[in-house]
Amino acid sequence: MIEHRQQLSVRDVTIDDKFWSPRREVNRTETIEYQYQQLETSGTLANFRRASEDKADNHNGMWFQDSDAYKWIEAASYVLADREDSELEARVDEVINLIAAAQDEDGYLNTYFALEEPEKRWTNLNTMHELYCAGHLIEAAVALYRSTCKESLLDVATDFADHIDRTFGDEVDGIPGHQEIELALMRLADVTDKDRYRNLAAYFVDRRGHDDCFVREIANIEEIAGYDPNDEEGGIAGGARPVFFEDGEYDGSYAQDHAPLREQKAVEGHAVRAMYYFAGATDVAAAAGDDELLAHLETLWENMARKRMYVTGGIGSEHFGERFTRDYHLPNDTAYAETCAAIGSIFWNQRLFEATGKPRYHDLIELQLYNAMLVGVSLDGTQFFYNNTLESDGSHDREGWFECACCPPNIARLLASLEQYLYAIDADGLYVNQYVAGSATPTIAGSDVTVTQTTDYPWNGTIEINVDATPPMEFAVRLRIPGWCAEASVSVNNEPIDVDVEADEGQYVAIEREWDDDQITVEFAMPVEVLAAHPAVAADAGHVALRRGPMVYCLEGVDHDRPLHQYGIDPDTEFGATYREDLLDGAVTLDGEATVPAMDGWEGELYRPVDETERATVPIKAVPYYAWNNRKSGEMRVWINEA
Amino acid sequence: MIEHRQQLSVRDVTIDDKFWSPRREVNRTETIEYQYQQLETSGTLANFRRASEDKADNHNGMWFQDSDAYKWIEAASYVLADREDSELEARVDEVINLIAAAQDEDGYLNTYFALEEPEKRWTNLNTMHELYCAGHLIEAAVALYRSTCKESLLDVATDFADHIDRTFGDEVDGIPGHQEIELALMRLADVTDKDRYRNLAAYFVDRRGHDDCFVREIANIEEIAGYDPNDEEGGIAGGARPVFFEDGEYDGSYAQDHAPLREQKAVEGHAVRAMYYFAGATDVAAAAGDDELLAHLETLWENMARKRMYVTGGIGSEHFGERFTRDYHLPNDTAYAETCAAIGSIFWNQRLFEATGKPRYHDLIELQLYNAMLVGVSLDGTQFFYNNTLESDGSHDREGWFECACCPPNIARLLASLEQYLYAIDADGLYVNQYVAGSATPTIAGSDVTVTQTTDYPWNGTIEINVDATPPMEFAVRLRIPGWCAEASVSVNNEPIDVDVEADEGQYVAIEREWDDDQITVEFAMPVEVLAAHPAVAADAGHVALRRGPMVYCLEGVDHDRPLHQYGIDPDTEFGATYREDLLDGAVTLDGEATVPAMDGWEGELYRPVDETERATVPIKAVPYYAWNNRKSGEMRVWINEA
Repeated sequence: MIEHRQQLSVRDVTIDDKFWSPRREVNRTETIEYQYQQLETSGTLANFRRASEDKADNHNGMWFQDSDAYKWIEAASYVLADREDSELEARVDEVINLIAAAQDEDGYLNTYFALEEPEKRWTNLNTMHELYCAGHLIEAAVALYRSTCKESLLDVATDFADHIDRTFGDEVDGIPGHQEIELALMRLADVTDKDRYRNLAAYFVDRRGHDDCFVREIANIEEIAGYDPNDEEGGIAGGARPVFFEDGEYDGSYAQDHAPLREQKAVEGHAVRAMYYFAGATDVAAAAGDDELLAHLETLWENMARKRMYVTGGIGSEHFGERFTRDYHLPNDTAYAETCAAIGSIFWNQRLFEATGKPRYHDLIELQLYNAMLVGVSLDGTQFFYNNTLESDGSHDREGWFECACCPPNIARLLASLEQYLYAIDADGLYVNQYVAGSATPTIAGSDVTVTQTTDYPWNGTIEINVDATPPMEFAVRLRIPGWCAEASVSVNNEPIDVDVEADEGQYVAIEREWDDDQITVEFAMPVEVLAAHPAVAADAGHVALRRGPMVYCLEGVDHDRPLHQYGIDPDTEFGATYREDLLDGAVTLDGEATVPAMDGWEGELYRPVDETERATVPIKAVPYYAWNNRKSGEMRVWINEA
Repeated sequence: MIEHRQQLSVRDVTIDDKFWSPRREVNRTETIEYQYQQLETSGTLANFRRASEDKADNHNGMWFQDSDAYKWIEAASYVLADREDSELEARVDEVINLIAAAQDEDGYLNTYFALEEPEKRWTNLNTMHELYCAGHLIEAAVALYRSTCKESLLDVATDFADHIDRTFGDEVDGIPGHQEIELALMRLADVTDKDRYRNLAAYFVDRRGHDDCFVREIANIEEIAGYDPNDEEGGIAGGARPVFFEDGEYDGSYAQDHAPLREQKAVEGHAVRAMYYFAGATDVAAAAGDDELLAHLETLWENMARKRMYVTGGIGSEHFGERFTRDYHLPNDTAYAETCAAIGSIFWNQRLFEATGKPRYHDLIELQLYNAMLVGVSLDGTQFFYNNTLESDGSHDREGWFECACCPPNIARLLASLEQYLYAIDADGLYVNQYVAGSATPTIAGSDVTVTQTTDYPWNGTIEINVDATPPMEFAVRLRIPGWCAEASVSVNNEPIDVDVEADEGQYVAIEREWDDDQITVEFAMPVEVLAAHPAVAADAGHVALRRGPMVYCLEGVDHDRPLHQYGIDPDTEFGATYREDLLDGAVTLDGEATVPAMDGWEGELYRPVDETERATVPIKAVPYYAWNNRKSGEMRVWINEA
């Protein structure tokens, strides 16, 4: 039987943090605001308006564009949990009214189908993403309900979910081309406590990989939605078909459809699809007490984290298919590492933690929060990376928005809901999973507890945690000692606690005592680490990366005179770590030395004996990876030549 | 005024060399034989037959396939210079008869146009390659005439050349999409001593880059040859158009049409086109005594050799466009380095040497002969590389033939005519340019001279050269001291000659004396060199390459237990050089040590501090680059991590 931990919700936690609060404020005032403007200018809201007026034709934008509105509501909901904002609330209500009006009487809701192909519902699950949009509708509804207790969107969502439940299994036997509905139904089940949503989620999880659902669809190509005989790309909307069909053969692995989940040996295919799928499947396994499925998902996680992940936490090595490729294949200059995939991984890891209580899942959440996710947005909140290279020749810059605008809204909803990743509770007490200043007010064993963190993390490894329980109560407080940390000390009211740090994977230090108004002090040593990759990673051979605490660093061209490939780092180099208030909105830089080749004697030569070139020692400065490309376009490298 | 050196022809030189003779024998018995069979099976000869019968339609293969027949005749001609072979001679005559019969009365000759679009001659010079085919016809005719004194094909070639001369300039103002006609016309002028061929070559050389010839052609797309409105690729035969038109804009640099030759700043575009062009232009400059053009071509050479060439002598960094890219952009795993481009460079360098007498041009010929050219063919003469990577993950193998079969015939004609690259004469005497065992019989200042080389070069740096002049005569013998050589000694009849070797570029040691029956002994020290690339070459930073004498080496997977990226070479490593009779048809391998990372402690880890990994010392074996991929498929690296 799986024992479940429960994360604290956005309503139970307040963030007041030097690192995160400015970013969340930019997210609220810039990103979420811009995202709303986009709903207008892209025609997304117009689609809902027209659909409610039963106007045929003229759907704007991508056929899964409804999801942009849902993701915006989700992000806005989290903001409303934090603060009163009548203007924002009015906007949310207005958008919900449009959505509700566009819903069909039988509960079905999708503006592309309403406006373009009403008779072809559910005929092209592979590509048309009706279930994906439904999932985002449900997530938005649950977020709004959890944040504000408003039920208006929840009614729409349950009507659609009921329609799907009536339709799938009997009338339609199929699975979504892009997962999302699975985890959404599990969230809806939590809110409504209706088992039929859990069963439907389990159906979608288990049906996948058993059959040739998509092949059957394509076999009737003239009869499915999105088919256009005049489209040179092969007749499926958006040309998604080639990804599924390599050399004319169906490639199920792209959408994790190559084998039943329980028989999959490694994380395969489109990385965002995989993360959403595994997140939903983890919920299903936990709810059903399916230890076997859960254990299998943990082995898939091990494959990902130990063989298919960049040092930044980025996942998906290849642009074509935005996908996982093979063990240890992690090219840097062509890395895909989609921002959304890192966010999907955070979703999955949160669920794995809840189901298993293992600290390694929050180690990875931390790595991805500070690196693979955060790099996706500029410091001013207006420019975004869709994919994240680990080495750029200067041609990779953030952009304002994307035609397939999945990443910016995903960043927005994650930053706005950061609260829910910090703490969790179970029968034994509290988990402190992420070190972020602010407070939380859980109820533990009947006692009202206030937990207050004070810290300059991640720039500094000192964290003060006050635990105030009314009435005083005995329970456990478990502090995560991050996997990157080799030396930690913990004390309660200045009394040291025994901490035996083992390398490599994180652990929890459990403090069991009666809590009243007590002060925990945590100290994590944060030396600069010079990292190597596993010897099987060809792309990183002869290279090193710099990390301090959870932060992965990089060199940027803007800080250096030479092309970055000319710098070589001796692994024994002592790096200084300095917080610079005036740089990159405040950041710790790493300052050290590297060698570069002397340029003399090369005149007129292209190759010559290596011993004819002296190397000179010069200063280098590394900046946090998330902050690169915020000053000017230029070169960047995470993996630097080893001298 | 340019003073011209004259290379000795295939009839004046005999090769009897341990390294080259077996390769030339394989070339004769396997490659040239197979090439002839291909002329039958591919329908190339059938095209000529049908064209002579005035049958419309049904042209076989590529629209420039006539050139395959011409290249075969050229290669066969060189063989016939070497030995009597009545069967081969009969075949040559038979093919010539077919060609002659297919020629139109006005001299025009092209089976694609005869069979497919007779009314559209000369309307699509960009793509349809009529002038390219004409150039190969002329080269074949000249080769046959020089080798055997047969004039049968020369008559066909001159008729076509005269037709071109009448047509171009007035009736048609244009230039070829693929250069070749320029150098061919210069060879024809040498044989016929007709200035109008020189003038026509000069027209094609100078007209290029001045105007929008190709843009004018494409503007009338419906009226040009090769246009097919049903072809998705854009309507130009073979889809060549996209290379010329990037993002809809004409990219003249692809075919060296971006600026007049005298204003071009660097070697640009398709590498084979560039080499053929510069070879023809060098002939034109030399014939016209145009010192300025010659000097400009030498600066283009310097750009290529010092900024845009692989350590193997390979040129052309990018698959797309098979082209030069930018200074120091020399990626290894995606290197294009087309075999034909190296061969084209050899043609160009031979002409630069003849025009300038500089040893650096024969240094580069040597490098490309032993590496960039020779790697293009398997040891058994039946498998070919079209493009030559410097780093393979195991997926790059030689193939039997290619749809665009330019490289195998180019290798065949080069190997069959290797004699002409070894010696040259001028007013002062003899040049010994390449060290290959055998003999030559030039006439110098009225004396019949026999030069005999005895050597195990390139495996061994000792060369014995006997010079026998009847009657005895005073002249200079100039021996090339290769640029790779840092220590050399030369003696005549055991009397040492003063040799002052300067690094980096080759030089000639001139021995002026009366020659009777005298013995020169040359000793080149051949230590193993560990090379670095210029610091601006990003792809080679932190890597080293191994060279011994003219031979560049590589590691192959078949000789090593670990993936090749795991080996690190300390530049101070002492490498042994051992000739192995039983390996790769006899070759010197380099044996030394490298370090590899210990694998223990990596279980379950993907990144960790670099100092936690010990490195173990293990043996490595490097094999000559030309010989890789002759045992089994597998990894290969020229640039190896520096430890």
